[in-house]
Amino acid sequence: MNAAKLEQQLCGRDLTKCLRMIEKFHGWIAPGLVLGLFMVDLAQELIGIDTEADAIVETRHCLPDAIQLFTPCTVGNGWMKILDWDKYALSLYDRRERNGYRVWFDLVKARRFPNLTKWFMRLVPKKELPLELLLETILSAGRSVLSSQAIYVTAYYQRRKKSGINVCPVCAEAFASAQGETCWSCRGKNYYEWIVYPNAAVKGTKA
Amino acid sequence: MNAAKLEQQLCGRDLTKCLRMIEKFHGWIAPGLVLGLFMVDLAQELIGIDTEADAIVETRHCLPDAIQLFTPCTVGNGWMKILDWDKYALSLYDRRERNGYRVWFDLVKARRFPNLTKWFMRLVPKKELPLELLLETILSAGRSVLSSQAIYVTAYYQRRKKSGINVCPVCAEAFASAQGETCWSCRGKNYYEWIVYPNAAVKGTKA
Repeated sequence: MNAAKLEQQLCGRDLTKCLRMIEKFHGWIAPGLVLGLFMVDLAQELIGIDTEADAIVETRHCLPDAIQLFTPCTVGNGWMKILDWDKYALSLYDRRERNGYRVWFDLVKARRFPNLTKWFMRLVPKKELPLELLLETILSAGRSVLSSQAIYVTAYYQRRKKSGINVCPVCAEAFASAQGETCWSCRGKNYYEWIVYPNAAVKGTKA
Repeated sequence: MNAAKLEQQLCGRDLTKCLRMIEKFHGWIAPGLVLGLFMVDLAQELIGIDTEADAIVETRHCLPDAIQLFTPCTVGNGWMKILDWDKYALSLYDRRERNGYRVWFDLVKARRFPNLTKWFMRLVPKKELPLELLLETILSAGRSVLSSQAIYVTAYYQRRKKSGINVCPVCAEAFASAQGETCWSCRGKNYYEWIVYPNAAVKGTKA
C-alpha cells in the first residue's frame, strides 16, 4: 500500500493507526470494519466532530465495532443502539436535537468495484477473494461507494433506563423486575448446566 | 489510591492501564466497568488465558464493555452475546467444548461493603455516593464480592450466521431477506425522516 494512502486522516487519526486499532479490538482487519471506518468518518464530518452524537446501526455484523472504536458510543454506555436488519448503514445524530446523518453503503455506486460488490453480496466464496486484494479495493473506493442523507430521528432515540430490580429468591441474584418474582434463569430459561469438578482445585480441568 | 493497588495485574495489565482503557472506550471510569474488570479477570483465570473463549453477558449495561475491552470478544465480531436480563453476570466458555465459567456479583458477599450494595441496588441517589468513594470501595472489594461456577453451555452458543440478503426495490439497499421482498424501513418501520436543507453546502446546519 502506498505511503500517501496510509497517511490519510480518518476519524482524526492516520489510516495506519486506525487499522491497528481495528486489528486489536476486532481480532483482525475485517473488510467490513474498514468500510465502516469510512462510514463513521463521513458521518462525523457531516454532523460535526463537536456534536454530542448518539448512534444507531442497522446491522449487528462488524459495523457496530467501527462505531465503538471511532466514536464515544458503545453498547455498554448505551449511546449506540443496534437494529438487527442486516443493512450496512449507520446514523449519528445530535442526542438533544435529534437531527443528524445516515450513511450507507451504496450498491449502485459500488458497481465500479466488482470485487467489493461480490464480497458484499456474498456472491463468491471467501477464498476466491484474497483479503489483501479486498482491503486494497475498499481503501481505493473509500467514500466513493457511500451515500448520506440528513435525517431527523423519530424512533429508538430514547435512552433506555434501567428497569426496576428484584432479588431472586432462588439464586439470590438481582435481576430485571419485569421478569417477575423469580428470575428467568431459575424458571428454566437458562443457558447453562452446572459442572461439578471432582478436584475443584484444578481450575479449568474437565472432569 | 496507593501505588501497590494501582500496580496490581488484572487481565494481563496493571490497574492504571486498565482504568485508562475504560475511560477512553466507555467515556468515563464507570463503577460497573471496574467491577466488570474484576469479573473478566476472574473468569479468564478460571478458564485459562489460552482458551479460545466466547462470552455471554446477562445485562446490556456497562458489563458488555468490560468484556469487549479485556477479551477478544466484541458485539461486532459475534463472539459476545448480550442477554437483556439485568443480571450482573458473565460467562466465558470454550467455543468448541462449550464448558466454561460463569462469574457473578454476589449480593451476600457484598454485604460487607454497604456503599457497594446501595449503589448496585440503586438505594441511594447518585449524588449521595461520590464516584471516588465508590471506586475506592470497588477496588478494595475486588474479587471478594464475586462468585463463580463451572458451567456447560446449553443455549446461545451457536454462531449466528448471516442471513440471506435481498436488494430492496424501493431504497436499493441490501437487507436481511427474512424481512421479505421490500425492507422494513421502506414499509414504515423506519426511525427517521429525511431533512432537506435549503443550502446543502452548509453541512450540519438545520433548515
